[in-house]
Order: sequence, then structure tokens, then C-alpha cells
Amino acid sequence: MGDLVESREWYLAAYCPEGVPTSDHLKLRTVTLSLAVDSIPHNHLAVETLLLSVDPYLRGRITGILEGLFISQYQLNQVITAFAVVRVIRSNDSKYSEGDILLNPNASVAEYSIVPSSQITRKIDTSNGISLSDYLGALGVPGFAAWVGIEVLGDPKPGSNVFISAASGAVGMNAGQLAKIRGCRVIGSTGSDDKVKLIKEEFGYDDGFNYNTESDFDAALSKYFPDGIDVYLDNVGGKMLEAVLNHVNKHARIPLCGMISQYNKVWTEREGVRNLLNMVGKEVRMEGFMLESYWHRFGDFAKDMERYIQEGKVTSKNKINIGIEGFLESLNSLFSSSNIGKVVVQVKA
Amino acid sequence: MGDLVESREWYLAAYCPEGVPTSDHLKLRTVTLSLAVDSIPHNHLAVETLLLSVDPYLRGRITGILEGLFISQYQLNQVITAFAVVRVIRSNDSKYSEGDILLNPNASVAEYSIVPSSQITRKIDTSNGISLSDYLGALGVPGFAAWVGIEVLGDPKPGSNVFISAASGAVGMNAGQLAKIRGCRVIGSTGSDDKVKLIKEEFGYDDGFNYNTESDFDAALSKYFPDGIDVYLDNVGGKMLEAVLNHVNKHARIPLCGMISQYNKVWTEREGVRNLLNMVGKEVRMEGFMLESYWHRFGDFAKDMERYIQEGKVTSKNKINIGIEGFLESLNSLFSSSNIGKVVVQVKA
Repeated sequence: MGDLVESREWYLAAYCPEGVPTSDHLKLRTVTLSLAVDSIPHNHLAVETLLLSVDPYLRGRITGILEGLFISQYQLNQVITAFAVVRVIRSNDSKYSEGDILLNPNASVAEYSIVPSSQITRKIDTSNGISLSDYLGALGVPGFAAWVGIEVLGDPKPGSNVFISAASGAVGMNAGQLAKIRGCRVIGSTGSDDKVKLIKEEFGYDDGFNYNTESDFDAALSKYFPDGIDVYLDNVGGKMLEAVLNHVNKHARIPLCGMISQYNKVWTEREGVRNLLNMVGKEVRMEGFMLESYWHRFGDFAKDMERYIQEGKVTSKNKINIGIEGFLESLNSLFSSSNIGKVVVQVKA
Repeated sequence: MGDLVESREWYLAAYCPEGVPTSDHLKLRTVTLSLAVDSIPHNHLAVETLLLSVDPYLRGRITGILEGLFISQYQLNQVITAFAVVRVIRSNDSKYSEGDILLNPNASVAEYSIVPSSQITRKIDTSNGISLSDYLGALGVPGFAAWVGIEVLGDPKPGSNVFISAASGAVGMNAGQLAKIRGCRVIGSTGSDDKVKLIKEEFGYDDGFNYNTESDFDAALSKYFPDGIDVYLDNVGGKMLEAVLNHVNKHARIPLCGMISQYNKVWTEREGVRNLLNMVGKEVRMEGFMLESYWHRFGDFAKDMERYIQEGKVTSKNKINIGIEGFLESLNSLFSSSNIGKVVVQVKA
């Protein structure tokens, strides 16, 4: 590798307050980067990106308004960032060597970059039988979100009735398996009959329904939850959340992981939930969460999850899209019902 | 007093699923009751009702549908019940004597009744300077609700920004004072300029606004909470709750005590809350509660509250309506903006 490389990167050209982001908002450009040894500051690394994690929260970072997810916004004209698996090309930090494979939660969505090694959260042991894409899925953002939602906030007992929306998505597939490990009865909703089949056959859900065909959610929940719902991990918000509130048991818990049905709308256009009064009588606790508040638990999570993966108790379906040029399309796929499992963009093999 | 008495009592003639309950739903009748010694079973008491507590949850008990508050419904043609202060006329229990003044949380809304003494929760010491109506207010249902909402679920720190809706109501007046005792900055919303004056001058609120004149709730909350809201004790639901969710701070807590704006409507007609997504980014916890789950804390509450009352740190405004015949009108007054403080019906002096 020479000292100068051409690096393609995605940058924010314009904020997108509502609707589907397009190439007007996120654009690909090519920059020239020097990887010469004297271009790499002390305790920095030159890395090439192998895999990029594509997650719904990224949509919230390009709205240009803090309202909504209240997460920090990407800056105009700057490269955007994501969770990634990267490989060291040149190291100016004695802790890391060329060829090391690392996890960077704040990586540039670019082919190459120079990063402070303080940003790296772990070196990946590639000999333990866990796939690199699982480090972005079951062991990454969606797996951790599932773990916080089920283990920390939902805290279901053996036999509890657990409902998970977007069940075949990256969070849902992990959450369902974690709830099964706890001995719960687990039902999921998802967007096609094939995906219902998938969550039952691959992820061990007891049952599930297609929200496009069983579109009377109230009737569906009556059918699948004759004994009511104890824990609902909400990934969609809107009408499904409203329907759930008509089926909650006493002291039900509703961790709010995200509301994928609502991200592309300004808030005044969102579906109102009319039956919050039910939360009083049923003493329901509803709680939003962001992973940033739970990083101190990441070690506990990773230890559990690695064991589950190695024991075959948690399996994953990862959709690997090849080529950095497909990043925008991959992001938008999360908000269409075509998506199954964890979406990853493979930048380099 | 002879062995036979005429006793007026309120009974449920018809359920009232929506709208304002009328004399079609709750009716007064006169029954004849024998207070003869041999009519009083062992461990029972013949009592006369002195004061009846009029609380919003009673509205939820006559809807005829469990949906909504999910609280047990009164039975058709049966006398309704409420929290009350009663006086013993004749006792068939050695623990109680004629003239004792007692608290009965499940008293018949009647002039006279015969009750199992197991129903009595305490004998009132009338020499401690606390008024009987305070036992139904600051020391009764609304005071306890305020205490659970602020002390247990809201748990604000000194300097926290606390918002209380229906601030001049029975729960609100106590909640504001409890939050001030904790050293918080406390703002209330209420339905008239006089009531704003009242909560500031009598209950120590730092400030307040009239939701009828400052009807752009979003603008009002921007003005009164430049630093955002840490704890919101919700007594009203609907549009005010929605507006609050645009002003919450990170990790805000919203105990849901009741939603007085919503009780008289069927749920599909209620105002939808469109911005629950804000709960994710701000990691807000919203939690409904019913006092039945906190009875084990009643002793702690009563000890605190009696001391606060005796030290003058908590004062109350109690609206005492004379005569059992006014019970229905008193109940409906809770849902009009005419109400101030705790509403009590005095049956006998």
C-alpha cells in the first residue's frame, strides 16, 4: 500500500427532517488520504474499514433537529460515523499492530481513516468461532439494545408473556432469543409470512403474526395473548403501542427501544397514542432508553452473549450488503418491511 | 337513638360509560336500617358517617367497563362506597366504643351503616390539632397519592424542576408542598388566575400558569421551564402530557396519577399523545400507579405527613359541601375547573 490512498466516504450534504433520506442528503465522495508514517499522530492508527453497522438510530442523526431522538446530529459536509469493524494498516500505538481487527463504535463511514486508538473498544479474537458480522449484530448495537430491553428493563420472569415488535429485525431477533433463554412465552410481530416463519423456526419464538395481514392489532393481540402481556419491547411505536396498552397485565413493563414507524415523520404527523390512561390502572412502567447510559454494563452483556453464541443459544441472520456505495440504500432498507435481521455493509473482505 | 333509623344512601342505578354522570346513574334512596344490638354481628360496628371523601377515581368505578382505569366497578342497585370518617354508635367489638371516630376506606356512601371492624384502618385522635377533613385530604387518598407520586416515583433532588398539573386540586396542592419540602423549584398549572394566586400564596409554588389563558402549553412550558422539566406529576393527561414531553430533561420521570381531562371520554375519543418517541432519546420513565400497590407504605406516609401538618409545612384547602344529597354534584365538581382543593361531603357534624 502506498502512502496516498483514494478513500470513498459518505458525508452529510443536507439534513432530512422528514421522509426517506436520498442522495440529496447523504452523498458519496472520494478523498485522498495520506497514510505515510509521519501523517499518523502518536497513539493513532491508520485503518481500513471491513464492516459497517447499519442501525435505525443513524436516521435520527440527520434530521437536523434535536427534537425526536435528541441525539447528536452529524455536521454538514462532514463524514458520517457508525459502529464498525476495522483492520489496522499502520500503527503509531504500541498496543496495536498491523493486521489487528478492532471494534470502533465511532468509525468514519469511509474506506480508510486515521483514528485515535482511544476510540477503539476492543481487539477481536478471530479464532473464537464468532463471525465478524456478529460483532456488529448480536454482540453490537442491536444485541446490546435487546439485552438492555429484556434483561435490564423488561426483566421478565419464567412464564411471563413477552411481546416483541419488529421481531425479525436486528434487535427483535436477539430480544426474542434472550427472552426464551429466560423461560418466557414469546410472540413477535413482523411484516411478512416468511418472516413469521423465520422467527419461529430460527429464533425460537413461540408464535408470531404478520402485521400486514393481521392488521387489526387489537384482535391479533387478543388471540396471541389470552393471558395478557407482561413485557412489551417496543421497536415501532404508534398504533401497535396503542393496541398493546389495551392488553397489558398489571405492572407490565414497556421498554421503548425505538419507534421505527415514526422516525421518518415530523412529530405532529405521528400517530397519537390515545389510551395512556390504561397505564394508571394497570400500573404500567414505560421507559425509553439509549445505549449510552448502559455502557458500564457492556462487559456483562458481551460475556453473556458470547457464551450464548458459542453454545448455539443465540443465532443470527445478518444481511451483508457488499460495497460502501450501498450504505444509503442499506440504511433505507431498515425502514422498509423488506429487512430481515442485522444489516451490515461490507467495505472490504 | 332508636333501633330503627332512616338512612339515605347513594346507589348505582345505571353505568355511565362516558360523559358527565347524572341522577340517571347515581340515585339517592332512603332505607330503613335496624341498629338494634342483636342486628350487629360479632366484631361489627353500627356507625354514622361524618365526612365522605370525593375523589376522581370514583368516576372510574361507574363506567361499567374495565378498560380505562381497570378498577373494580360498583354493582348495579348497590350502595356505592368511598373513603370516610365515621363515628361509632353501637359497638359489638371490644376494641371500639361508642363515640370513637374512625377511618373507613371502604365506607358506604350512606348516613348509617353496619360494618365489620376489620374494615377500619385507624382510630382518629381528635386532640392532635388535625382537622377531620384533613384525614380525608392531606392524610387521605389525595395526600397519599401526592406522596407516592413525589416521594416514591418522582424522587426529585433539591433544585430539580418539578411540574404539577391540576395544581390546586387535592393531589396537586399536597404534591407541590412535598416537592418544596424537598427543595425543588415547583411550577403548577391550574384553571384560573385566582387559583394560580392560591397555589403561589398558600401552597408555596414558585410560579404557575392558567391553562385557559396560556393555552399554548408548549410556549408556557418554554417560559416557565427554561431549564426543562425533571419530574412531571401528571394529573390530567392529553395535550398537557404531550406538551411536557417536548420539555423533558434527560432521565425525567413522569408518575401518572390520573388523567382528569380524559375520564369522561371513551378511549378512542381521547387526545392522542404523538411524541412518545421523545421518551427514547431523553430516556424518560413514565409510570402509572394505584394506591392499592403502596398500602404497605401508608404508615411511612402518615408519619411524615402528620409531622408536616403539625409543623405548618403542609396546609390544605378543603371544600366542605354540607349534606349527603350533594354527593353527585360534589363528584362532578372535580371535573369542572371550579374545583379548588380537597372536596369533602359533610354528612353529619
